[in-house]
Amino acid sequence: MEPLKMRIAREIGTPALVVDLDVVERNIAKVQALCDAKGIANRPHIKTHKSVLLAKMQRDAGAKGITCQKIGEAEAMAEGGLDDIFISYNLLGEEKMARLAALMNKARMSVAADNPLVVEHLATAAALAGHDLHVLVECDTGRKRAGVETSAEAITLAKKIAATPGLVFDGLMMYPPEDGAAISNAFIAEVRAGLREVGLDIRVISSGGTPNLLNLGSLDGQTEHRAGTSIFNDRMMMAAGFASMEECALRIYTTVVSRGGPERGILDAGSKVFTTDTGWGLKGYGHILEHPEAEVARFAEEHGFLDLARCNDRPKVGDVVRVIPNHICPVVNVVGALVLVRGEEIVERIDVEARGRLT
Amino acid sequence: MEPLKMRIAREIGTPALVVDLDVVERNIAKVQALCDAKGIANRPHIKTHKSVLLAKMQRDAGAKGITCQKIGEAEAMAEGGLDDIFISYNLLGEEKMARLAALMNKARMSVAADNPLVVEHLATAAALAGHDLHVLVECDTGRKRAGVETSAEAITLAKKIAATPGLVFDGLMMYPPEDGAAISNAFIAEVRAGLREVGLDIRVISSGGTPNLLNLGSLDGQTEHRAGTSIFNDRMMMAAGFASMEECALRIYTTVVSRGGPERGILDAGSKVFTTDTGWGLKGYGHILEHPEAEVARFAEEHGFLDLARCNDRPKVGDVVRVIPNHICPVVNVVGALVLVRGEEIVERIDVEARGRLT
Repeated sequence: MEPLKMRIAREIGTPALVVDLDVVERNIAKVQALCDAKGIANRPHIKTHKSVLLAKMQRDAGAKGITCQKIGEAEAMAEGGLDDIFISYNLLGEEKMARLAALMNKARMSVAADNPLVVEHLATAAALAGHDLHVLVECDTGRKRAGVETSAEAITLAKKIAATPGLVFDGLMMYPPEDGAAISNAFIAEVRAGLREVGLDIRVISSGGTPNLLNLGSLDGQTEHRAGTSIFNDRMMMAAGFASMEECALRIYTTVVSRGGPERGILDAGSKVFTTDTGWGLKGYGHILEHPEAEVARFAEEHGFLDLARCNDRPKVGDVVRVIPNHICPVVNVVGALVLVRGEEIVERIDVEARGRLT
Repeated sequence: MEPLKMRIAREIGTPALVVDLDVVERNIAKVQALCDAKGIANRPHIKTHKSVLLAKMQRDAGAKGITCQKIGEAEAMAEGGLDDIFISYNLLGEEKMARLAALMNKARMSVAADNPLVVEHLATAAALAGHDLHVLVECDTGRKRAGVETSAEAITLAKKIAATPGLVFDGLMMYPPEDGAAISNAFIAEVRAGLREVGLDIRVISSGGTPNLLNLGSLDGQTEHRAGTSIFNDRMMMAAGFASMEECALRIYTTVVSRGGPERGILDAGSKVFTTDTGWGLKGYGHILEHPEAEVARFAEEHGFLDLARCNDRPKVGDVVRVIPNHICPVVNVVGALVLVRGEEIVERIDVEARGRLT
């Protein structure tokens, strides 16, 4: 039988983003089981796959709802039938509030806020929609991303939310660093004590991140978890100790289109496919299954430059290779077209609905 | 009157990619004038803008044809009515040859090749199309990208092209480094001499790159030039000395959605909008027009992290700012939605046809 990669190169062409649904199903089940074991609701972040089909697979496996990072993602998901959506992002502005209000009439919406202006804007969305909007206070417990930086600020903001007509204070959202449980727990305890004085409950404590699934349960009172990358995994998740190579569900199939000397090779996928994210101290931009000693050393927009110095078995022009990228999320965002397979069988080609949404 | 950026934030929402057509027209005219002054044909690379509308503006200003980097780009352009297309890339595989043959019946197509396998594949496209395909030998004259590495290889490959039924040897294509004229000229002279012995002419010498427009005319016998970025320009083109800030036609409008301490700020555009390209020794990922001392220091996927340590006038939550990115080409590829303006007037919103094409 013709190997899958030759069939994909011949029928579909390279570069191609090939997703093994058998691996995806196992990855979804693994996360759901981790959450179930700790009694924590699973609310996967769809920023990784951006696909209604895959979000529904997560829901059908037991996810309570989904997480989105922008209105456009939530619109695509609500349109596709997902009905419990948390947008873990500060939303601002008239145009976004109108869209949020429309979403509130299609799905159970909750959102994050880390400052008073966002809360004031959210109140206008609730007024437009004519019913309540659930709001979580985003807390920075060490990652230095968004979020209020002190428990005092969190308490003040929670009170403001609770006092704002149309808004319901739901709880706290955070994205702690992998070693951030102690800081997060102190933060949560202070906020809980401060809010108890005014009779406010923290009903939801939402944490996130695929690597944080490794320490699930270390956050006091965590009620739900948002993981994105775990559905596909990538080289960073291997480096983080979360995933094995067999758990990397998405591979970039690409063709060697030029060699240029004994130690160089060129793939037909560059920064416009792989993007240039690095992290976790990784060397190079991808792992080539057929040539693990080859380094994906740098990119032009449509060229992937291979350093073959450490390769005994070197690829030749015309060879098709499979690459696991460093970070899968921006790749799907650029490309938006996936080839779904099971083992050696092509199942379906899909466009992901929320790819490249600006707002 | 309401300032443009407030109107865009209110009506369209941020982040938004805003292109000033007055600046675009001046940028197109500048490149055309540079080429005209040297008697070199202008064949702009559409990988930067990916838009039929903008390609037609380039053609109407005097461009001989356009350059594409992949079949999907050429298909979008041919569909839109562009009829002289050079694909400056090694194309391989059955699926691509069928599409190339279809393109040959819509537009005058030429392509690059740097190895014998590509030439053999191109012959199958010519056979399928039923007429001749024009082929240029891609030569590496110092950038270490694709291209044959020696004049001897170029001569051998040119002879193979000329001897292959259905293929026409057109000449040489290169993308020299900015200081690469001497090496390129020696390379060209050797190939010219070698081919003269067998009666083969070099009709086309195609060079490329926006920074190389600064030394246009230094390449012996150059007949055409492929520049991409010059239509929009970016921080890299400013660093390269090609463009002024006023010649940067595309700005990313983005909102400050969080502050997080006195020296930090967060934009609602991260690596999924800006991408993470750097180059030309640039510090940070963008220049903020309103806060030139602010550094766009790093990204999460949907967060742009500002270092405000050197800012006296610091942006506050809700402020809309305009950012010139380091490298504009991958940004348009991800986003694909442009707001066209002239000065303070919104003209039109367009989707760019060839955005995110995989193959």
